[in-house]
Amino acid sequence: MTIPAATYLDHAATAPPRRAVLEAMWPYLTGAFANPASQHEPGEQARQALERARRRVAEHLGARPTEIIFTSGGTEADNAAVKGIALAAGSPRRVMVSAVEHPAVLDSARWLERFDYETEVLPVDSTGLVSPEHLDAALSRSRADGGAALLSIQYASNEVGTVQDIPALAGVAASHGVPFHTDAVQAAGQLPLNVNQLGVQAMSLAGHKLGTPKGIGVLYLRRRTAFEPLIHGGGQQRGRRSGTENVAGAVGMAAALDLAAQEDVSALAALRDEFIRRVEQGAPGPGGAAPQLTGHRSRRLPGHASFLMTGRSGESVLLDLQRRGISCSSGSACDAGSQDPSPTLLAMGLSPEEAQAAVRFTFGAETPQEELLRAAEIVSEV
Amino acid sequence: MTIPAATYLDHAATAPPRRAVLEAMWPYLTGAFANPASQHEPGEQARQALERARRRVAEHLGARPTEIIFTSGGTEADNAAVKGIALAAGSPRRVMVSAVEHPAVLDSARWLERFDYETEVLPVDSTGLVSPEHLDAALSRSRADGGAALLSIQYASNEVGTVQDIPALAGVAASHGVPFHTDAVQAAGQLPLNVNQLGVQAMSLAGHKLGTPKGIGVLYLRRRTAFEPLIHGGGQQRGRRSGTENVAGAVGMAAALDLAAQEDVSALAALRDEFIRRVEQGAPGPGGAAPQLTGHRSRRLPGHASFLMTGRSGESVLLDLQRRGISCSSGSACDAGSQDPSPTLLAMGLSPEEAQAAVRFTFGAETPQEELLRAAEIVSEV
Repeated sequence: MTIPAATYLDHAATAPPRRAVLEAMWPYLTGAFANPASQHEPGEQARQALERARRRVAEHLGARPTEIIFTSGGTEADNAAVKGIALAAGSPRRVMVSAVEHPAVLDSARWLERFDYETEVLPVDSTGLVSPEHLDAALSRSRADGGAALLSIQYASNEVGTVQDIPALAGVAASHGVPFHTDAVQAAGQLPLNVNQLGVQAMSLAGHKLGTPKGIGVLYLRRRTAFEPLIHGGGQQRGRRSGTENVAGAVGMAAALDLAAQEDVSALAALRDEFIRRVEQGAPGPGGAAPQLTGHRSRRLPGHASFLMTGRSGESVLLDLQRRGISCSSGSACDAGSQDPSPTLLAMGLSPEEAQAAVRFTFGAETPQEELLRAAEIVSEV
Repeated sequence: MTIPAATYLDHAATAPPRRAVLEAMWPYLTGAFANPASQHEPGEQARQALERARRRVAEHLGARPTEIIFTSGGTEADNAAVKGIALAAGSPRRVMVSAVEHPAVLDSARWLERFDYETEVLPVDSTGLVSPEHLDAALSRSRADGGAALLSIQYASNEVGTVQDIPALAGVAASHGVPFHTDAVQAAGQLPLNVNQLGVQAMSLAGHKLGTPKGIGVLYLRRRTAFEPLIHGGGQQRGRRSGTENVAGAVGMAAALDLAAQEDVSALAALRDEFIRRVEQGAPGPGGAAPQLTGHRSRRLPGHASFLMTGRSGESVLLDLQRRGISCSSGSACDAGSQDPSPTLLAMGLSPEEAQAAVRFTFGAETPQEELLRAAEIVSEV
């Protein structure tokens, strides 16, 4: 088994696991393995580790430990939030989502249609932003028609890096009395996560975008938010998510958030801007056009740069870059197998042909600066 | 962090992670971390590991790789099977389960009642067995009333170790055209898992009962079984379970099944019988009665011994044993926080008082024989 030698610029798909995270998890992968529900001493040891991790995660979110639900990842957290809050509400049977949501949110809303729920998709502008004013108007219209059970708008886009104004959007939702969920899977580790400053009722996180192995996520669920579990059974986590808790994963999640809290994201953002500048100023493509930034220039994830490689297909650029030692993505990894143009890019007003030219570079605080800037040169050449 | 020094006899709650499993997982927890949906080389490496693991798991089950769905654990697999098959069927809206199912199965069936499904609970005899003849009669009655969308009967009980006659029960279900799911979480690693010999349409496994860390499970789903996903999103695993796959967990699951396939369960069963003999022949309790075996004497998991400590409460026996270095369980770890008497024991005809006296000892091929037999002496004394 070899460690990838390429410059890995696909953190938005999966970030490299961090050493300190694995070290924190190790005891719970080995000797301290017991079931945290068991009443014996090994069980007590596992339970204490789990609850310590829950408290640490809660602190990073400005939440209470009882508001933290460990899940198997971001997709499960999104499913639990959208389905769980909408089903618990019972009525009104309307779920509102933005046009740029991850499929875990959008398809959860669509699934509810089989139970006579309705999905309303909110448009975005050419940078991928949902406007608070438009949201207010949409919620007013919706209110005249019975209201909405849930509004779900992502914190930041995995595809174009655009960061929504969650405090403003959540404030609008609150003024209409609609519970607000945000998919913060991409934001976690790079943007503030205080749920009170954000003003959200629910928020999803995924460990493997933060430096844990895959298989752990978090659903923050504000107290007194009506909720119906996605997964039933032994009643773990106060009945809101049954199944033996992934203790090692929970410990890793807490450690990853600890690490992220110590990092200087402004330095990362400055590095991103330099990367974007170099790519944009590079040689124009065969069509004569320079790479064109997608998403918002300033309201953007610190570790995210995305472009249209005008005149090229994203796939062929990807292959060229891979040959030159750079691993990046032509779109969302989750849909990477798909040949369909990205719904996010279409919602931003791009044509299907333009959308095929999308390439994304995502990185983190541990990405070496010189590697990243060298990659920018290679991108310019390709 | 200390490794539990006690004799750990609670494998049915969580088995100790196995060294070879962790070694197999390690590359995918570290360097080979990429998202298996990514189109670059690191992604390809992760994808190949995932699909190798899927093929290995399929081989152990006599299944096709496309019939293997990796989940976050046994509870998710049970939820996905019960809800997914029943919802896909649409009608008839009846789910039949045995009276001794794990809450992950029972509560999934109960949840369907909110969508106008009906749960029919099948009785068991005093050893915990469902009779194929009674099942046939129940299915005939049910057929006259529209039929059933799903029948779910566990392979083996976590509480009393009783092993159902799955081939016979599944044969009866097939003769009535009802899809059959079995929760094999406790059986895996100790009983044959060939899905064709068992005759099941769906089967749930949990890694952490087999020697993997927590957070990985498997749902076997026979091809052409109508199924609606529990978790929606990026369309991973042929759309049947979205969410970035836990590659390391999947590799660990395959390694754990590899190990289990090499083990001599008849030696384990012989050791279990010796353990039971020594406990039964030990000193009688304060009530004058010797410990009384629960469950079936011969149709029993090789690593499972369970008793009523007549005249004592299971909890107090547990504490006494813990003080003397033995970690075991008074019931199912999943419900261990609960003070209610076990529904399984009540279904077997015990009184609530008797059910409170239950204690369970569960072990595996790696449990040292001398430790286990020493534990039997200690149990007799306590």
